[in-house]
This record gives sequence, structure tokens and C-alpha cells, in this order.
Amino acid sequence: MELSLNQATTRPYPLVAIAEAAMRAGIRHIGLWIEPVEEIGMARTKRLLADTGLSVSSVCRAGFVADKEGAELRAAIDGVKRALDLSYDVGSPMLTFIAGGLPAGDRGIRSAELRVRAALEELEPHARAAGVRLALEPLHPLFVGSRSVVTTIAQALRVVAGLPVESVGILIDSYATFWDPNFHDDVAAAGARIAGYQVSDFALPLPTPENMFGRLFPGDGETDFAPLTASIRRAGFTGPVEVEIFNEDIWKLPLETIISRTVDGFKRHVGEPLNELERQPV
Amino acid sequence: MELSLNQATTRPYPLVAIAEAAMRAGIRHIGLWIEPVEEIGMARTKRLLADTGLSVSSVCRAGFVADKEGAELRAAIDGVKRALDLSYDVGSPMLTFIAGGLPAGDRGIRSAELRVRAALEELEPHARAAGVRLALEPLHPLFVGSRSVVTTIAQALRVVAGLPVESVGILIDSYATFWDPNFHDDVAAAGARIAGYQVSDFALPLPTPENMFGRLFPGDGETDFAPLTASIRRAGFTGPVEVEIFNEDIWKLPLETIISRTVDGFKRHVGEPLNELERQPV
Repeated sequence: MELSLNQATTRPYPLVAIAEAAMRAGIRHIGLWIEPVEEIGMARTKRLLADTGLSVSSVCRAGFVADKEGAELRAAIDGVKRALDLSYDVGSPMLTFIAGGLPAGDRGIRSAELRVRAALEELEPHARAAGVRLALEPLHPLFVGSRSVVTTIAQALRVVAGLPVESVGILIDSYATFWDPNFHDDVAAAGARIAGYQVSDFALPLPTPENMFGRLFPGDGETDFAPLTASIRRAGFTGPVEVEIFNEDIWKLPLETIISRTVDGFKRHVGEPLNELERQPV
Repeated sequence: MELSLNQATTRPYPLVAIAEAAMRAGIRHIGLWIEPVEEIGMARTKRLLADTGLSVSSVCRAGFVADKEGAELRAAIDGVKRALDLSYDVGSPMLTFIAGGLPAGDRGIRSAELRVRAALEELEPHARAAGVRLALEPLHPLFVGSRSVVTTIAQALRVVAGLPVESVGILIDSYATFWDPNFHDDVAAAGARIAGYQVSDFALPLPTPENMFGRLFPGDGETDFAPLTASIRRAGFTGPVEVEIFNEDIWKLPLETIISRTVDGFKRHVGEPLNELERQPV
């Protein structure tokens, strides 16, 4: 399993500089965000990818449908369609889909889940036509109200159940799910639904006011990545593993430092333990 | 369902002052913490309870066994036994049991769960003899590493499965579980296992450095208490509902203000919606 640098990890830097630094560090995959691609334009993005030899592991992110209705919902759905087209254009196999939080008037999680399901059903033909997989990502329960009513792997599987596995998958992020008492069973059940695997480490305290920004390099927090990664691998996932970190302290570091620490954390806590495991006789 | 004031909500104030203020506010139940009881002594605690007419809904808290072994584990088990005896002495029907976090050397949740189970098995005869129920409380996934490997209702039910329901139950706290996509089904499955129900509200951002201390009065955060409470009631739970809040800003308020806001938040978001529901024809 190879490392992919998710662009968020180096968020303050220009995409061109990130891609070139990643290439120099021997990284072969990148997770792109929509806005920076739009900023430099598709032609320049494609040239950059060709010049650096980077393949795109994912595009982040669209969705946020669970708390919307009417015109707002239509706009969100159209946004996902545009993001699917952009994902196709950059050669990404998938688009990260975030469910969205709970609307003020209805805090019911099951009814919100049905709205997410309805949106995915509507979007699936567009995803299939584009050859880009919608990847529903459970977020940490911290964000159930504000960002994602989908918080567990089992729930994500319930939401996508029955939709074509080629065009709708799930994205498993270690920060969001490492605490889950059913992680290993649910990853096994997910099997071919696993469209992607992202890693970053968790620790308390969370920074305020942005609770989102407490992600750490693998190895700097509470997570034991080896068994998580082993389960993901056993479930059949062989794609690049994205390191995706949101952290204002990390974003203050020089680009090359962020990238070298990403490579190092990934190697020691994700890559090497997995290699060791796979060298063991079955 | 009647309100019980968990002592933590008014933590900086002396137990005697809390109990008398609660009585004056018309509250009939209190959740006690071990340390303040030990501080004023059992005789004085019992006299205070008799004088104020307060019944004890729970004693908080013991456990923290998941990350311990050897002498440390023995000390924790002995601590639970002493807490069970104290609970009996104050007339509490239950003792809150917190699983404990993950030890540095083994971040596996399932193996930690087995240690919690083993401790509960060992403690069950003592609980039965004391006539006090051990109530395993899932905490928010935030605290999986530091405080509780048990984070969901389903997992708590798995840990206590097969142990006598009279002596081992679970405690459901809204702050810890409101986000759970299976809340309603799992509460229904819990049925007579439900030993207690505690409420407080959740909102981001969490305060730092103490992420524990972000609990709010019911109605001040994201939680829709009415459906949660209705499910708890339908599952057969009829005991007092504790308001348990950890919040340094709230602790700075005058005792009477904390109590009147507790009564008000409980009435508007827990008591009245439930009364309304139960007045509706079936």
C-alpha cells in the first residue's frame, strides 16, 4: 500500500509547489481538493500531474446534503455532479462524499440518513457515467450535528446498501473511526465497498475554536494503525493510502518539513507494520 | 420521570448546601459522588438525606479497569467494592461504572473489553450481595483512549451480556450517545438493562484543555432530547433522570442559579415533551 499525500495536509501551499515537493520526496499519489484545482484551472492541473507523474487517489469533497431541502439541496446535488466531472477530468477514481449535518428543525439521524441515501441514489447514474466512485465517508461523532450524520462504518454501509458497488463506495478515515468497537468486523463486511483509506492521528485535547483541526501525523497520537491497516488490507483494499491532516500548527511548518514528516509517519506506522505482517507465514 | 440533580452539576459547592438548595427547589433525587460523601462522612450524609428527603439515584463513579493489570487492577477492583458498599450505605440503587481507557502497550478495543467484562464478572457477586447495581456507562468516543473503551450502547450490552440483569445494568448518558445511529434500536434492545439515564447537552467547540467540561444545560446545545427520552421510557425505564453537567463556566454561577437553570432545562426539554407524548392517545 503506497502513500498518497492529501492536499489538505499541506493546505496553505500552492498546488504546484505541493505537487513538485511531493514528487521530489518520492510520493506517487495525491489527493486533490476541488478549490485549488479550480484556482489554477484544469489545463494547468493536468499538465502538473503529467509533469510530476502523480496519480490522483481522490478528490475532496462534496455532498453536505443531509441538512438541506429545496433549492439549497438542488444546489448541493449540482455541486456533487460538477465535482464528479472534475474528478473524471483529473483522473480520480473517486470523489469523497460527506453526508452533511442535522438541520435545526429535525435532529433525527435516521430521517437525515434517508435524505443522504436519496441524494446518492440520484447521483449514482452520474457517477457511473463519469466512471468516478462516490465515496461516503463517516466522520467522527463530534461532527454529527455540524458535518456528518454518518459516523460509523456500519451506518455508511447501511446508507449505500444495494447501490452498485462500482459507483458507490465508502471511505474509511482512521481519525473518524479508530474508536469504533466494531471496526474490524465492519471493515471485513465492507469488503469491496472500500473506496479509500485515509490516516491521521487522534489526541486530546482538541484545539478550539476549530475542533476539526486537531489531526496529527501518524504516531503522534492515540491510534494503533497496524491492526486498522491490516483489516483494511485483508478486506481487499490495495489502493494508495492518503495521509490527510487538518492542523494549524502543522500548516505553519515549511512545505518540505510537512512532507518529510508525512512520509516518515506513514512509513513507520502504516507501511512498515503492514509489510512486516505480510512477510509473516500465514 | 422525575429530575435528579447529579452533584457534578454543582461541583464546587459543599454537599450540604447542594442538598438543601435542591430540596428548596423541589427536587426529590440526587446523584452523589464518592469523594464529597467521604469528605463529610457517612453519618452526616445519611442525616442530610433524611433531613432533606432526597433519595439517591446513583453514586458516581468507580471502575477504570480496562487499562490496568496486576496490583493496579486489584486496587481498582477493591475501589469498586468499597464504592458498592458506600452506595448501599447511602441507599443508592446503582453505582456508575466507567470502563477505563486503553493502556499504552495495547490499543486493541476488543481485548480491553474482555478485561472490563472480567472485572464485572468478578464484581457481580459483591454487587448482588450489596443490592446495588453496577451500571456500565458508555462514554463519548472522544474518550476511548483516556477514559472508556466502551463508547456505544450496543457495545455496553455486549460487555454485560449474560450477567444477572438485577446486579449489572447500563447507564445511558445523552451527551455520550445522542449521535449514535442505532440509539433507538439499541435502547429498545437494552430494555431492563437500563439502570439509569443522564442528560446534558452537546455543542462544539469543546473547551480546552479539558474536553470533558463542555457539557451544557439541556436545550443549550445540539441534542433533541424528546425522542431520546421517549425511547428510554418505552424501553421501560421509569427512574429519576439525572442532569449531570461538567462545565467550568456553569460552575462559576451561584448555586441557586445552577439549580434553577437545571430545573428549567429539564422541564422544557425532558419532562414536558415526555408528558405531552404520554398524553397522546396510543
